[in-house]
Amino acid sequence: MKILYHPKKEDIHLTAVLAALSDPIRIRLVLDIAKSGERPCGTFEQPVAKSTMSHHVRTLREAGVLNVRVQGTQHLLSLRSEDLEERFPGVLSSILKAAEALEREAPR
Amino acid sequence: MKILYHPKKEDIHLTAVLAALSDPIRIRLVLDIAKSGERPCGTFEQPVAKSTMSHHVRTLREAGVLNVRVQGTQHLLSLRSEDLEERFPGVLSSILKAAEALEREAPR
Repeated sequence: MKILYHPKKEDIHLTAVLAALSDPIRIRLVLDIAKSGERPCGTFEQPVAKSTMSHHVRTLREAGVLNVRVQGTQHLLSLRSEDLEERFPGVLSSILKAAEALEREAPR
Repeated sequence: MKILYHPKKEDIHLTAVLAALSDPIRIRLVLDIAKSGERPCGTFEQPVAKSTMSHHVRTLREAGVLNVRVQGTQHLLSLRSEDLEERFPGVLSSILKAAEALEREAPR
């Protein structure tokens, strides 16, 4: 089985996290997971191809934002909220709050 | 005199702000300005060429993070903290706190 790279908590970089969150599709994905909790990769309604989605998930995983757990043929996605909160207090939560407020203003 | 583009407060995008802050040089620059208040562009000690610095300042200005005020031959840089706080509460301040903590761990 392919081992998916996840940075250790202490190797998560602030600039990499911000870069990973600086894309509208990725920030929506993260917001969806924040609301639902751990969730299979195939269950997100995103207006992009499967390969594009895989690329976004990889970017978020390699930056330390997402944890990807392989279960059979499924990839289960969850947020590394605790790791991020410990490393950069308030950063992820304030970004998610802002993204949620924007979404209320202009729903998909 | 050349008019420098600054987005209106309501046209500042969260993803553009995060992208602008996702670079180590730019985040240091923003941290320096947060500490010092408005400051001429030429007074920053950054290990980059003047043209690179101009590019970074432009990126931050166009994203709505910096205000650039032209006074004679000087460009005075300041943070748009109030605009950003109003648009995305807690985002800039938590990012700056995290960046400052990292800087204390590993000074330049």
